[in-house]
Amino acid sequence: MHHPIITLTSDFGYRDPYVAEMKGVILSISPQASIIDISHQVDKFNIQTGAFLLSSVASYYPKGTIHVAVVDPGVGTSRKALLIETTKQFFIGPDNGVLAPVVHRQGIQHIYHITNFDMMLPKISPTFHGRDVFAPMAAHLANGISPSTSGPELQKITLLELGGLRKKNGIIWGEVIHIDDFGNLITNIPVEELGLSDLVNLVIQVKNKTVKLSQFFAEKKKKELLAIIGSHGQLEISVNQGSAAKKLNVKIGDPIKILEILSYPQ
Amino acid sequence: MHHPIITLTSDFGYRDPYVAEMKGVILSISPQASIIDISHQVDKFNIQTGAFLLSSVASYYPKGTIHVAVVDPGVGTSRKALLIETTKQFFIGPDNGVLAPVVHRQGIQHIYHITNFDMMLPKISPTFHGRDVFAPMAAHLANGISPSTSGPELQKITLLELGGLRKKNGIIWGEVIHIDDFGNLITNIPVEELGLSDLVNLVIQVKNKTVKLSQFFAEKKKKELLAIIGSHGQLEISVNQGSAAKKLNVKIGDPIKILEILSYPQ
Amino acid sequence: MHHPIITLTSDFGYRDPYVAEMKGVILSISPQASIIDISHQVDKFNIQTGAFLLSSVASYYPKGTIHVAVVDPGVGTSRKALLIETTKQFFIGPDNGVLAPVVHRQGIQHIYHITNFDMMLPKISPTFHGRDVFAPMAAHLANGISPSTSGPELQKITLLELGGLRKKNGIIWGEVIHIDDFGNLITNIPVEELGLSDLVNLVIQVKNKTVKLSQFFAEKKKKELLAIIGSHGQLEISVNQGSAAKKLNVKIGDPIKILEILSYPQ
Repeated sequence: MHHPIITLTSDFGYRDPYVAEMKGVILSISPQASIIDISHQVDKFNIQTGAFLLSSVASYYPKGTIHVAVVDPGVGTSRKALLIETTKQFFIGPDNGVLAPVVHRQGIQHIYHITNFDMMLPKISPTFHGRDVFAPMAAHLANGISPSTSGPELQKITLLELGGLRKKNGIIWGEVIHIDDFGNLITNIPVEELGLSDLVNLVIQVKNKTVKLSQFFAEKKKKELLAIIGSHGQLEISVNQGSAAKKLNVKIGDPIKILEILSYPQ
Repeated sequence: MHHPIITLTSDFGYRDPYVAEMKGVILSISPQASIIDISHQVDKFNIQTGAFLLSSVASYYPKGTIHVAVVDPGVGTSRKALLIETTKQFFIGPDNGVLAPVVHRQGIQHIYHITNFDMMLPKISPTFHGRDVFAPMAAHLANGISPSTSGPELQKITLLELGGLRKKNGIIWGEVIHIDDFGNLITNIPVEELGLSDLVNLVIQVKNKTVKLSQFFAEKKKKELLAIIGSHGQLEISVNQGSAAKKLNVKIGDPIKILEILSYPQ
Repeated sequence: MHHPIITLTSDFGYRDPYVAEMKGVILSISPQASIIDISHQVDKFNIQTGAFLLSSVASYYPKGTIHVAVVDPGVGTSRKALLIETTKQFFIGPDNGVLAPVVHRQGIQHIYHITNFDMMLPKISPTFHGRDVFAPMAAHLANGISPSTSGPELQKITLLELGGLRKKNGIIWGEVIHIDDFGNLITNIPVEELGLSDLVNLVIQVKNKTVKLSQFFAEKKKKELLAIIGSHGQLEISVNQGSAAKKLNVKIGDPIKILEILSYPQ
C-alpha cells in the first residue's frame, strides 16, 4: 500500500486541540496518509518564520509530498486559500507569502485558488481554515484527486522574501533570518555568494564583532564565537557549544556584513 | 493492511521517556497501529484540561478510533481503569472524569472495568499505568480483541463537567474553560444557547469589559478585543493578532456574562 | 507490508527544521519506515540525559528497532559515527557515550564505524550529521541492508556511566540522574540493590531530609515528600501531586544516601 506523505507547519503549538483536529480530518478522509509535523512552534502569526522553515525542509521530502502550512493571521478575510503544484511537490496554505519562498525555489507549475466546497469540511469556521479547508484539501489530494479539482488557476501569489541581500564594492550585506533553538544565527547569505574568493579571506561583521569562517564548531574553544557554512548552505554565526544569540544579543532582521580582505590577484 | 488509530493525551510533556515508552508498548503488541499525539502538554494533574482537549478533538477522528487519556493523579490507588465504548469510538483511561465529557457527548454503549491481566504488561508499576495498563489495552483492542475481554461491565463512571452554565432572566452565565496558546479564551457557552435572538444584539461581559460578537478576527483592528463563535462552536473572547488572556488577565474558571439588548418583539 | 521502526532522540527541540529534515531523509530512502520521536528536548549538548532517555525507553520497542540518537557536541571533529548491533536492536549515533548505557544493557554484538559514503547523503555538512549520516544510515538499515555494509568493525566504544553508585557498611550512595517534567527525582539506584532487607526499613536521605519508601503516590498527603520504586525499577524521590525538585531544590548529580535501620537478624 502506498503511504502519501502530508507535512504540517503551523503556529498552533502543542497544548491545544488544533493540530490533532487537523490530523483527525486528514485520517478520516485519507486513512493511509502518513502525517509528519515539520513544526507547530512557529512564532505566533510570524509568516516569515513559517516560510523559512518550510523552505528549508521541503526539498528533503520525496517527490509528490503534500505540505500544509498554516500561519494565517488573515483567516476569515478575503485572503485566498492556495494549492500550488511545483515541479516536485504540492503546497497548501493561505496566500500571505508563507508558501512563496519554497515554491519559487522548487519552480511553480500551477497555482490553484481552492474554492471547491467538495474539498472542504461541510461546515467552515471563520477562525480555523487549517482544519476546515487546508487539511481536507490535502487529504483529497493524497487520495489521488487531480489538483485542478480544487478551483480555478491563478497567475500569481503574494510574494515574500527571506531578508534583504545586496552586494556593493565587494561588500555583502545580509540579515539574520532565523535564530535556532541552540542560539545559532542563520543568515540569508548563501555560500554561492561567497564563492568568488578564498573563503579564509572573509571578514564577517555582526554587532561590532568580527569573525572569520571556520570549517566546524570544534575548531574554536568552547563558548567562542565562530562563523560557519551551515547545514542549509547559508552563512551562520555560532558559538561552540553555546548560544550566539545570547552572546551577541542579536534578533531576527539584524544586519550581517561581509568584507573580503587580502584578496590579491594570483 | 488496516491501520487502527490510537490517540494519546497526557500531562507527560515531551522531555521524558514516558510517551515514547507507551508508544513502544503499543507497537510491540500491535505493529500496524497508527499512533497520533493529541497533546502531552496538559497542565500537570489537570483532569479538566485533559477532558476538554479529548472532548474537542475526538469526533474529528474516524469511527473505531481508540483514544487513550492519561491524566492520572490517583495512579496506584483504587481508582478504576476504564475502557468505554461509545456509539462511535473507544476511550481508555482512569475513572477520574477525564473521559466523562467526551463519552457523554458521543453516547456511552458499554463501560468496562479493565481487570484482565492478560491485557496488561506482565509487571505493573504503581506509578505508570499509562504504559503498563492503558497502552497495552489499547494495542490489544487495535488487534481486534473484543472490548468485553477487558473486564466486567460497570454501570456508571465518575462525572466531570466543563464549567458551570446557567440562564436566568435572559442572562447567560458561563465560564472560561480553556485558554489556548494564542491567548484566546474558550468558554463553555455553545452557539446554540445564543440562538434565540439576533446575535448582533448580544453584549458579552468579561472582567468589566463589554464586547460584541464579530464574524471573523480581522473585523477588528490589530490588538483589539473581540468575541467570536470559535472553531468548536463555542463563544470565544479573542484579540485580533494578540492575546486576550494577557490583555484581560483572565484565568480558567473566570465568569462570562451575556446580556441581550434591543431585542424588541418583531 | 512490514513497517520497520526508527526512533529519534536529540537535543534539537521542535522549533527548527532539523528534526523534520531527518524525517524527510529517512522517508525518501525508506518510505515504509515508521518514525517515532523519543524526545527532542534533551538539554542542549547533554550526552548524559540523552543516554538516560534512550536507555530507559529502548527495551520497550520490538526486536529489530533502529534507534538514532543525536546529541553531538563534537560533530565535525574526528569523533566516530557508530552503528551498534545488540542482541535485540540497532543503535546509531556519535561515539561520545550517548549509546553506551543502552548497548551495554542489551548486550553488544557488533560495533561498526560508519564510513561507507553510500550510506550517507551525497553532501555532508560539517554541522549536521544527524541528517547527512545517521538518518540515511538508519533508512538503509530499515531497507534491509546488512549492518556490516556500514564500515569496519570496532572493538570498543566511548564509555559513559549514569551516575556513580557505591555501597559500604550497609550504606548505599547514589545520585539523581534525571529530573522529570513533574519534578520527580530519578536516581541510579535499582531496586535490586535494595533487595536484601525489608524495604520498609530503609531510610533515604536527600538534601538533609529523610524519607521512607512508599508503595504509591497517594499514600502521602498532597504536596508531601515520598520515595518510591519508580516505573523503571529505580528509586525515585517524589512529591504527591507536586514537584520534589522544587521542594528540595535538587539538581542532577546531587547525592542520595540510603541507610538501613532496624535490620535485626531473623
